[in-house]
Amino acid sequence: MSIVQFNYPTKIKFGAGAVKLAPEALKAAGKKRPMVVTDKGLVDLPMVKDLVSSLKKAGLEPGLFGGVHGNPVESQVKDGVAAFKEHKADSLVILGGGAPLDVGKAIALMVNHPGKLFDYEDGKPDARPVDKDIPYMIGIPTTSGTGSEVGRSSVVGDDVTKAKKIIFDPKLLIPLVLADPELTYGLPAAVTAAVGFDALTHNIEAYLAKGYHPMADGIALEGVRLVAKYLPKAVHDPKNLEARGGMLMASMMGAAAFQKGLGVTHSCAHALSTVHDTHHGLANALMLEACMEFNLEVVPERLAMLGQAAGVRAKDDSGLAKGFIKWIGALKKETGIPAGLKAAGIKDFAKCLDIAVADACHPSNPRPVTRADFEKLYKSSL
Amino acid sequence: MSIVQFNYPTKIKFGAGAVKLAPEALKAAGKKRPMVVTDKGLVDLPMVKDLVSSLKKAGLEPGLFGGVHGNPVESQVKDGVAAFKEHKADSLVILGGGAPLDVGKAIALMVNHPGKLFDYEDGKPDARPVDKDIPYMIGIPTTSGTGSEVGRSSVVGDDVTKAKKIIFDPKLLIPLVLADPELTYGLPAAVTAAVGFDALTHNIEAYLAKGYHPMADGIALEGVRLVAKYLPKAVHDPKNLEARGGMLMASMMGAAAFQKGLGVTHSCAHALSTVHDTHHGLANALMLEACMEFNLEVVPERLAMLGQAAGVRAKDDSGLAKGFIKWIGALKKETGIPAGLKAAGIKDFAKCLDIAVADACHPSNPRPVTRADFEKLYKSSL
Repeated sequence: MSIVQFNYPTKIKFGAGAVKLAPEALKAAGKKRPMVVTDKGLVDLPMVKDLVSSLKKAGLEPGLFGGVHGNPVESQVKDGVAAFKEHKADSLVILGGGAPLDVGKAIALMVNHPGKLFDYEDGKPDARPVDKDIPYMIGIPTTSGTGSEVGRSSVVGDDVTKAKKIIFDPKLLIPLVLADPELTYGLPAAVTAAVGFDALTHNIEAYLAKGYHPMADGIALEGVRLVAKYLPKAVHDPKNLEARGGMLMASMMGAAAFQKGLGVTHSCAHALSTVHDTHHGLANALMLEACMEFNLEVVPERLAMLGQAAGVRAKDDSGLAKGFIKWIGALKKETGIPAGLKAAGIKDFAKCLDIAVADACHPSNPRPVTRADFEKLYKSSL
Repeated sequence: MSIVQFNYPTKIKFGAGAVKLAPEALKAAGKKRPMVVTDKGLVDLPMVKDLVSSLKKAGLEPGLFGGVHGNPVESQVKDGVAAFKEHKADSLVILGGGAPLDVGKAIALMVNHPGKLFDYEDGKPDARPVDKDIPYMIGIPTTSGTGSEVGRSSVVGDDVTKAKKIIFDPKLLIPLVLADPELTYGLPAAVTAAVGFDALTHNIEAYLAKGYHPMADGIALEGVRLVAKYLPKAVHDPKNLEARGGMLMASMMGAAAFQKGLGVTHSCAHALSTVHDTHHGLANALMLEACMEFNLEVVPERLAMLGQAAGVRAKDDSGLAKGFIKWIGALKKETGIPAGLKAAGIKDFAKCLDIAVADACHPSNPRPVTRADFEKLYKSSL
């Protein structure tokens, strides 16, 4: 047993209507000029307009930056920093999915820190230190997948190469998350299913990841239990508060748990997204069964525990473990996820192999993964 | 679903030898004159001497306050504040069980805050605000029960009335915990069992407590799994690192989980400690079976989940739930806990009833508890 470190997430206000707590929280923190950061696709929706007007009604003077779109890149962060300074903002209210949350955190970093965003890249030998003040942030998630609102990193791409870079620092943890399931009512069924599989995969791979982290293990198992109970309901009954709440919670639990590590599914999925622009959650869903079959021989008892959490009934651990993999297939079907890569329009994976091998996630997978293994995994997922 | 708040614990460095990270952590925080706070019973032991000399070797100038003893009272906090000021200390290293951790946090509070300790009592209508700086703290637990090292409160008694008062503030969260299982090797079997049952009861009652907190639920179930796996080993093989580590982790998980709430067992136990000076963990152990029998009719499915976590095998949920209660009895026997109150030397509970009814824990119990219920619970635990 070596010395390991645990950190757990932030203050979360969770429940229908939680978004309405933003004005009061900003005032309690002594803030007057918050800047709302959101996605181009959200900026004209009522949820953003309502937020801005609630801030105004409370006597605050909000700014609005809606310049986040697609897989976010550095120039969006620069634009956001410029908007923050122009507005003379003193805080950020970041509303959206993973992209605005990541850009918002990067804006918060660059408001007071010198140099360029990627000077702060995680693991860079001469990375600049994160040692200046970070403005107060409130995070308001609108999907139930990445859990970026409770994470300590920001993933932003290079404008030219599109290569994604990770900025990581505990100071990037958003100090207050307003997790409001009603904001996810409008997600279409296919998006609900895809982001739901992202949350599921986070919980599963965190639980299976190498390393000692019983708190993460417990959170991950409970996260799987929530997905099993609520994902089909959230897909088929989109305004079901209990189901939407369960999935929003499961996504934050996945993100809290995966500080333990992720695994082979994520490496396969990252490569698919880079090469084929596949939605990250969908890519995870398409690879998950094959990757769990691959892990079965090394962690059967852990897969059995996951089966138990998913509600699989079987006579013994072997039945639970195999039943868990079958359950993943059944959940895909039930939530409208294509059965395999071809059904999702992906015919070829040749360009994925190098990227998957180089990916940072699979080293924490319980079974080591070779290039030949990746090839087999893609083949059997076709 | 109403709006609820989640907070999770602090930075924890966990593992054999973690205590050795103290000097480096203090230096990284820019501290030079830490004051070690510990228990009278520990102050002359090698673990404290080694800690102090490691701080000196690292060029720091440590002070030492070993004035914590028994159920701690306010005067100990005053003495600690005086020692802190006399030493011109800039930080605290708090080593011990629940008592030194509670006193250490209270000292940290009172170093810069005006008035008296109980001016800051939680829930007091005119309580003073915790708005001044709190010196940097490192917490080093030496038992595996209370988990006070990851809590946000300090429980200290009145010198005259002995009444325990709770000081609660998020700023009392110790920012770095060094959780070193080797420090628990010396705990006698009876203490290991009693504090182990404290950790177990925290996990069980947090899981059963009313309210929505899936992260706490997941942590609590995993905590029960750890206790089931490791408590007998920790009692019978005291230098088993894996078992000691598992119990230390389970105790922190119990404390992390019980921000959700506790239950009837704790109310019974608090009264026993007040009236008969019973060890808190032992008191929990003595009451736990009866209290779970009492809860069985309202939360059978939750008790079944606990049974699953404890490794009970049964055909159905009803078998799991009942099996879980039997498992508690078997674990008591296996770890040398007396079967009931009489066997523990407690013949009378008449004075306990009023105190149990007034206790703050049982309102979050899943089944409401009347005075008559308390009477039955004590009777059946005799």
